[in-house]
Amino acid sequence: MSEPHIVPARGFPTEEFETRVANAQRLMDSARLDALVLTGPQNFRYFSGFNSQFWESPTRPFFLVVGREHDPIAVIPEIGGPGMATTWVSDIRTWPAPRPDDDGVTLLADVLASCPRRYGRAGWEMGRESVVRMPITDFDRLRNSNLGIEFVDGSPLIWELRKIKSQREVEKIREACRIGSDAFDLFQSRIHFGDSEIDASREFRIAALECGADTTPFVAVCSGPGGYSQIIVGPQDARLTDGVIMFIDTGITYDGYFCDFDRNFAFGHITEEAQRCHEAVWDATEAGIAAARPGVTAAGLWTAQAHVLDAAGAQGLNVGRSGHGLGMHLTEPPSNMPGDDTVLEPGMVMTIEPGMELAPGKMLVHEENIVITEDGCELLSRRAPRIMPVITN
Amino acid sequence: MSEPHIVPARGFPTEEFETRVANAQRLMDSARLDALVLTGPQNFRYFSGFNSQFWESPTRPFFLVVGREHDPIAVIPEIGGPGMATTWVSDIRTWPAPRPDDDGVTLLADVLASCPRRYGRAGWEMGRESVVRMPITDFDRLRNSNLGIEFVDGSPLIWELRKIKSQREVEKIREACRIGSDAFDLFQSRIHFGDSEIDASREFRIAALECGADTTPFVAVCSGPGGYSQIIVGPQDARLTDGVIMFIDTGITYDGYFCDFDRNFAFGHITEEAQRCHEAVWDATEAGIAAARPGVTAAGLWTAQAHVLDAAGAQGLNVGRSGHGLGMHLTEPPSNMPGDDTVLEPGMVMTIEPGMELAPGKMLVHEENIVITEDGCELLSRRAPRIMPVITN
Repeated sequence: MSEPHIVPARGFPTEEFETRVANAQRLMDSARLDALVLTGPQNFRYFSGFNSQFWESPTRPFFLVVGREHDPIAVIPEIGGPGMATTWVSDIRTWPAPRPDDDGVTLLADVLASCPRRYGRAGWEMGRESVVRMPITDFDRLRNSNLGIEFVDGSPLIWELRKIKSQREVEKIREACRIGSDAFDLFQSRIHFGDSEIDASREFRIAALECGADTTPFVAVCSGPGGYSQIIVGPQDARLTDGVIMFIDTGITYDGYFCDFDRNFAFGHITEEAQRCHEAVWDATEAGIAAARPGVTAAGLWTAQAHVLDAAGAQGLNVGRSGHGLGMHLTEPPSNMPGDDTVLEPGMVMTIEPGMELAPGKMLVHEENIVITEDGCELLSRRAPRIMPVITN
Repeated sequence: MSEPHIVPARGFPTEEFETRVANAQRLMDSARLDALVLTGPQNFRYFSGFNSQFWESPTRPFFLVVGREHDPIAVIPEIGGPGMATTWVSDIRTWPAPRPDDDGVTLLADVLASCPRRYGRAGWEMGRESVVRMPITDFDRLRNSNLGIEFVDGSPLIWELRKIKSQREVEKIREACRIGSDAFDLFQSRIHFGDSEIDASREFRIAALECGADTTPFVAVCSGPGGYSQIIVGPQDARLTDGVIMFIDTGITYDGYFCDFDRNFAFGHITEEAQRCHEAVWDATEAGIAAARPGVTAAGLWTAQAHVLDAAGAQGLNVGRSGHGLGMHLTEPPSNMPGDDTVLEPGMVMTIEPGMELAPGKMLVHEENIVITEDGCELLSRRAPRIMPVITN
C-alpha cells in the first residue's frame, strides 16, 4: 500500500533532551525565570521523554521542574517512579499517591525552595492554549505560600521552544502523516454506501492502527446532505446515503506526534455545486502550500487561502482560522488567521485548512500538513484528489 | 463470541439531564453556590450531552454555566455552535474563536454577571481530581475582576453528583465492560509468542474496536520476566518471550463511559511462584467483590483485599490503592485505600484492583469492575481465569 519506508526509531537520544533543556534555559534567562514547572502530558514528555497513558486518570498530578541552572527534577507519584527511571531524567522525587491532603504540594514546594534563585520567578503553563494540570486549590496554596517565588506565565516560552521541530520530530510527524494517508486509502476500500458515521469512524480507527498508528485520539466524522453544518461533533448514528457528503478529520499519533488532516467523501452522487466547492477548498489548500515559506506569517497563509475562497464566493465560516501548528498536540500555535504575525521558520509544521460554505449550514473543509523548509515547504500528508471521491456501493 | 445482547442507545433523554441539573441545584443550595462553571470535557458533557473529540485541541476553552435558578447556559467558541444546538441546551452564547486577547472571558463574565445571585459564589472544578480547562491567567482575570462573585471549589459537589450512576449510565459502562471482555478473548486468539508490547497494544485496540468500542484512550501494556516493575509506562519495544509476564490494563469507551480492568498473560512458561501470586491477586479480587455492598466504605474494600494479599506474603506496592470509582473518567473518586471513608451506595461503579510484588521490581496486578446493588454488587467485566493463561505459539 505504501512505498517502502523506514519507520523512525521510537524515543529520542539523550542529546535531543539536553538540547531542549539548554534552549529552555537560554530563554528562561531572557524571561527572568529560575525554573519552568511542567504539569501537562505533552510538555512533561517534551523535556523528560516520559511516555505514559496514565494522564487519562485525573487522580494524580505530575510535575517536572526544569531549572535555569540544573537538570530537570521529576516530582511525581510513586506509581511513576520505575517508569521515570527509564528516561534520561536522573533526579526523581516521589510521594506515595494518592494522598488527598497533600498530593505533591509539599514535596514540590521543597524542590522549588531548593532551586538556585536569581529572579524569584517560576514559569508555569498559565497562558494561551495551556492548562495547569493540577487542582487550582493546590496551585493557589503553592503560590500563596511563603516560598518567595512568583508564579508567572511560562507558556509563551514553552510554545516558542516547541514551535520549531527538530529533524527527529519532523520524521515522527511525517510517519504519522504516512500512516494517516495509508489509512485513508485502506478506509476508502472498506467504507460502504449506507454505513453510519459511527461505522466510518470505527473503520478509520482500525485502518489507522493496521497502518501503524499508536493511538487514534481524534477521528471526527461529520456528514450532511450536500455538506455538513459543523466539524467537531461526530460521529453520530447518521447514515451515509445518497447525496450525503462525509468529512473525516483525523489526529492519529506515532510515538507521541500527531498528523491532522481531513478528507471528504460523497455517497451515491455529488452535485456540481458541491464538486465545485471541493475544488475551491482544494485550490485554496494549494495556494496555502504555495505561499508557505520562511518569512511569511501565519496571517499570510490565511490571506493566500482567503483569496481563492473569496474568488469562489465563500461565505463566513465558524472555524475562525485556516490552519495551525501541529506536533505533540493536535493543534498548536500559531493560527493561520488575521492578526497572527508569527513568522514561519524552517522546522515549523503547519496545517493548511481552508473551509467554505456552499449555503448556510452546508460547509466543506479541507486540510493538509506541511513542514516549512529552507526555501518553501514540503507536503507531509499525501495530497487529496481534487475531485471528491464518490462511494456508490 | 458474546451472548446476544442489546446495545444500549446512545445519548440520554432530556429527562436524564434535567434530573442531573435538578440534583446539582439542590446541592448548590446547600453549598451556597449561585452557579457551577464547567470547563472539562466530562463535566461539560455530563450536564449538556455535548459530545466532541475537539477537546483534544487546547486552543479554545468551552464553558457551561449551570445556575441555581436557571437552565444551563453554554458559553462556547463559534465552531461549537451548530453541534451544541443538537443537545438539550437551548441557551447558547458563542464568540468568534480563536480570539487570543479575549477567548470567552468577557462573554463568560457577562453571563455570570447576569445570573440571579443569592450567595455571590460560583463553583469551579478547582479541587481534587479536577482541572480547570482554561488558561489560569484568564481564570485569574475573571476572579479578580469586579464581578463580585467569589470563585470556590465546586469539585466535591460535582463528584458527589457523578458518584451514583443512573441505570442508563450503568448500562453504558456494562456495555464498555462487555466490549472489553470480548476484546480480551479476541486478543488472546491473536497474540503470539515473540510479539512486542507495541504489537499487543495495537492488537488489543483493534480487537476492542471490532467488538464495539468507540475509542481506546488507555491500553497500557507492561511486561517483564516473571512480573513487571510498573503498570503505567508502556507499550514499549520489549518482546514477549519465554518467561515473560504481560499485563494489559484497558480503558476503552462506549458512548463516553469507560471500562477499566486488566488481564495477565504468561509467555512460554510460568513459574509456580508467579502462578501462585496470580491466584493470590485473583483471590484478593474475589474478596473485594464479596465485600462490596452498600454501607461498606472504600477503605473497607482495601481491607478486604489486603487480608488476602497479606496472607499471601505481599510486600508494599507503588500503586497506593486497590481500586477506585469508574465512569466518564477512567478513574474517579473514591479510592480503595485506608482513610477513604466514602460509603458505598447502590449505583456506584467501582474497580477492584489488588496488586502484589513477588520480588522487588516484579509485581502482578489484577482488576475487575463492579456496580454496587441494593444488597451487594454485580460483576460488569467477565471474570478472568484464576489460572493465568500461557501463550506458547
